[in-house]
Amino acid sequence: MTNEQISEHLIALEHAALTAWCNGDPSPYLELYSPEFTYFDPFTPRRWDIGEVREMYEQIRGKLSVDRFEMVSPRVQLHGEVAVLSFNYTSSSFSGMWNCTEIYRRVGPGPDGSEDPGIWKIIHNHWSDVHPKQ
Amino acid sequence: MTNEQISEHLIALEHAALTAWCNGDPSPYLELYSPEFTYFDPFTPRRWDIGEVREMYEQIRGKLSVDRFEMVSPRVQLHGEVAVLSFNYTSSSFSGMWNCTEIYRRVGPGPDGSEDPGIWKIIHNHWSDVHPKQ
Repeated sequence: MTNEQISEHLIALEHAALTAWCNGDPSPYLELYSPEFTYFDPFTPRRWDIGEVREMYEQIRGKLSVDRFEMVSPRVQLHGEVAVLSFNYTSSSFSGMWNCTEIYRRVGPGPDGSEDPGIWKIIHNHWSDVHPKQ
Repeated sequence: MTNEQISEHLIALEHAALTAWCNGDPSPYLELYSPEFTYFDPFTPRRWDIGEVREMYEQIRGKLSVDRFEMVSPRVQLHGEVAVLSFNYTSSSFSGMWNCTEIYRRVGPGPDGSEDPGIWKIIHNHWSDVHPKQ
């Protein structure tokens, strides 16, 4: 499998998790998160770990509904077992743009034992909104 | 060299670059950036590459002066040649908190040929400010 194919696989994983998220279902993201997962967004007062993120996601389960979203210019920087996926995000639920960084790590072969693309988990996520300087 | 020692090395690199930055000197950061470097902050309308960041940094060279800053709870997630450094940031120049993610990659041995810690470069950076929901 080429680096380009692995990159496409990771972008597809992210798009599927984001699609579920926009329909109120955080489970695909939660399944992608590694136990070592760390998280930043503009509303968290500090870096969160997997337990804090899980609690926050369960509080909003079923409450989100976004008609349309777009992952703008996704780029994967792939180095061995680690991949940095970055993209901008827009959706029908607000007028602005968001920045997103997801760090994926390949944790092992696929369920059928195949090496490529293998199982990838997210080890860090950083979301932020783009806004004017204050 | 243990993973803990490599982590301390990366935190020291970041702290030194940040100290220079807070004294108006962006050169240490620019020297740490890899050619593949990508960048997000809350004021960039989309992901920037190394050329765009260099241009922005040169515009503010000599104009920044921050008395005190703190890297809060730096954490390094080290996997082979890639390390995710995340921390919160506060400084005397504003009252709020920032989130910072830096992705470092080991690009080769040190100038004396030593394997550890080797030369590390930043391949992606994401800064954002923490603020209330609007």
